[in-house]
Amino acid sequence: MSVITIIGAGMMGSAMSFPASDNAHEVRLAGTSLDREIIDAARKTGRHIKLNMHLPDGVKYYQAEQTDEALEGAELLICGVSSFGVDWFGENILPRVPGSLPVLSVTKGLRTADDGTLEPFPHYLARRYAKGRKLSLNAIGGPCTSYELAAHHQTHVAFCGGDYAVLESLRDMLSTDYYHISVSTDVVGVECAVAMKNAYALGVTLAVGLSEKIRGKGMADDYNAQAALFAQSVYEMGKVLELAGADSGNIIFGAGDLYVTIFGGRTRKIGTLLGRGMTYAEAARQLEGITLESVVIARESVKAVKILSQSGKANPDDFPLLMHIGELINDGKTANVPWEKFTHDRT
Amino acid sequence: MSVITIIGAGMMGSAMSFPASDNAHEVRLAGTSLDREIIDAARKTGRHIKLNMHLPDGVKYYQAEQTDEALEGAELLICGVSSFGVDWFGENILPRVPGSLPVLSVTKGLRTADDGTLEPFPHYLARRYAKGRKLSLNAIGGPCTSYELAAHHQTHVAFCGGDYAVLESLRDMLSTDYYHISVSTDVVGVECAVAMKNAYALGVTLAVGLSEKIRGKGMADDYNAQAALFAQSVYEMGKVLELAGADSGNIIFGAGDLYVTIFGGRTRKIGTLLGRGMTYAEAARQLEGITLESVVIARESVKAVKILSQSGKANPDDFPLLMHIGELINDGKTANVPWEKFTHDRT
Repeated sequence: MSVITIIGAGMMGSAMSFPASDNAHEVRLAGTSLDREIIDAARKTGRHIKLNMHLPDGVKYYQAEQTDEALEGAELLICGVSSFGVDWFGENILPRVPGSLPVLSVTKGLRTADDGTLEPFPHYLARRYAKGRKLSLNAIGGPCTSYELAAHHQTHVAFCGGDYAVLESLRDMLSTDYYHISVSTDVVGVECAVAMKNAYALGVTLAVGLSEKIRGKGMADDYNAQAALFAQSVYEMGKVLELAGADSGNIIFGAGDLYVTIFGGRTRKIGTLLGRGMTYAEAARQLEGITLESVVIARESVKAVKILSQSGKANPDDFPLLMHIGELINDGKTANVPWEKFTHDRT
Repeated sequence: MSVITIIGAGMMGSAMSFPASDNAHEVRLAGTSLDREIIDAARKTGRHIKLNMHLPDGVKYYQAEQTDEALEGAELLICGVSSFGVDWFGENILPRVPGSLPVLSVTKGLRTADDGTLEPFPHYLARRYAKGRKLSLNAIGGPCTSYELAAHHQTHVAFCGGDYAVLESLRDMLSTDYYHISVSTDVVGVECAVAMKNAYALGVTLAVGLSEKIRGKGMADDYNAQAALFAQSVYEMGKVLELAGADSGNIIFGAGDLYVTIFGGRTRKIGTLLGRGMTYAEAARQLEGITLESVVIARESVKAVKILSQSGKANPDDFPLLMHIGELINDGKTANVPWEKFTHDRT
């Protein structure tokens, strides 16, 4: 039995309390200042107000000002913040983390450095916030919705980090008969694959909006175009992995995650609205208040391809769908999918 | 303008009359003996009774006994039969086809030779029915439902065959602003990728049935397990391409096609019923009268892996999902998905 502290009590961070508790660990769930109501309610009722489920019995709750107490004696720190909280986590939490305490982050996303390098969050955090200290920064990639994990649905994810032995120990701590874990030391490969699916889920769901525009609402019996965009997405995600110097075998994590993200919430909404012919400004107004990680990731990816193209390291013709997504979300254009650019001859 | 003859007036063969007519070719649609009613009705009303749509104006109709007339002067022969009609086509039509007439087949599927070689239909037809003559046998792979092609939805397919120049001429004859065509001389790669998706669509939809069994009907908000099976399917399809000696880049055609097949008709039905816990015999009774190409393809693939494993050329541990599908459709077992075997460590 170990002490596992989760910082960030949003849906995904909190859902991690299920495999942790099922393995009989002591689980401490610490909110950020954004999670005050969640922690208050969970203390009183045992329920998570956003997951709308009971959290496991025995979970201990901490408000933001009690973070040091939550970290005392922890043997694993799960970072449960979203990509918008990464810098907050780096500035406020990492300085309190001893080098011996492994960090496992649920945060998905990546940043593009000025030279076009696609940088996953574990590397970004180490570069900006470790300040010369050696930290064990690991991350979770792969298709996993929080409410399904909480409901013990069969789930397969990938833990990635620099040290295989650490990854194996994290797997030992958290794997269950419903939470299955691959491990990989190819951090760039796993994180790029799962981050890119956010951008490309937006791309595939353009077809949903196009279909609604031409044939009325709904997408039933209307799949050829989605399949064409799906195939093109898998092709371009493979090319992004190549650009990032990662093993293209990681495409399996991205493809599974792409499949599930197409059905889910916010990314699908923005893709559908853009597909109907809205400008990004109009679509963003309609989705006011919703944070769009997919758009951020798409922008970072477009930026990487553009920077790398200038130095001849990338060819924008390999990324016609991503470049079109860039036109939509950066340049105010409306959807005009370049279908004819998606053909791939092999001789 | 060329003369294009389609033999086999089922949904997919008939749908090919749309891009053919839109390119101003003379289109002749010739039924097999199974298509008598379709041809009769189309002659009288212009409608295809299974597609439930008007076929393009100007299409000429032929009954099975008029096949020679339909072939007279043809410059392209489209084979529109299903995989169950391949031997009929080889025995009855190929002997009448001059070597100068390219054949383009919509038929999906593959056969496993006694030595475990996965053989796509163009190669199978050449080996069994060409009788030493040099024929131009090409095929169409990729995600394309017939009713959507007929409705001019955006569609991306791959034409494959042995001669790049022939493939380019076929593309020139048939490509439109909605029917986009990649060409590939990697016949085994394209055909294996798109055939395997039939087997794996059955695999992914096991999760739908499992979910229905545990949580009642419907699959909304229940995607982690499907995504895990989708990722595993992409992994195993890549391994099948390796086994077949094909370029793994063809996975893009398989992945797009897998995505769309999961939503569609018969394969989803059988996967769902098996996922609920039925034996194959029970499920087949419930789907009586429905031809299950996915089951045939899955059996051929299982057979190939088993034969190649005996000679040490394949490792069944690389195919835990396919092997489980084999247990379901060959051995009378009920669904017990080996989730724990789907992890892939990378160091």
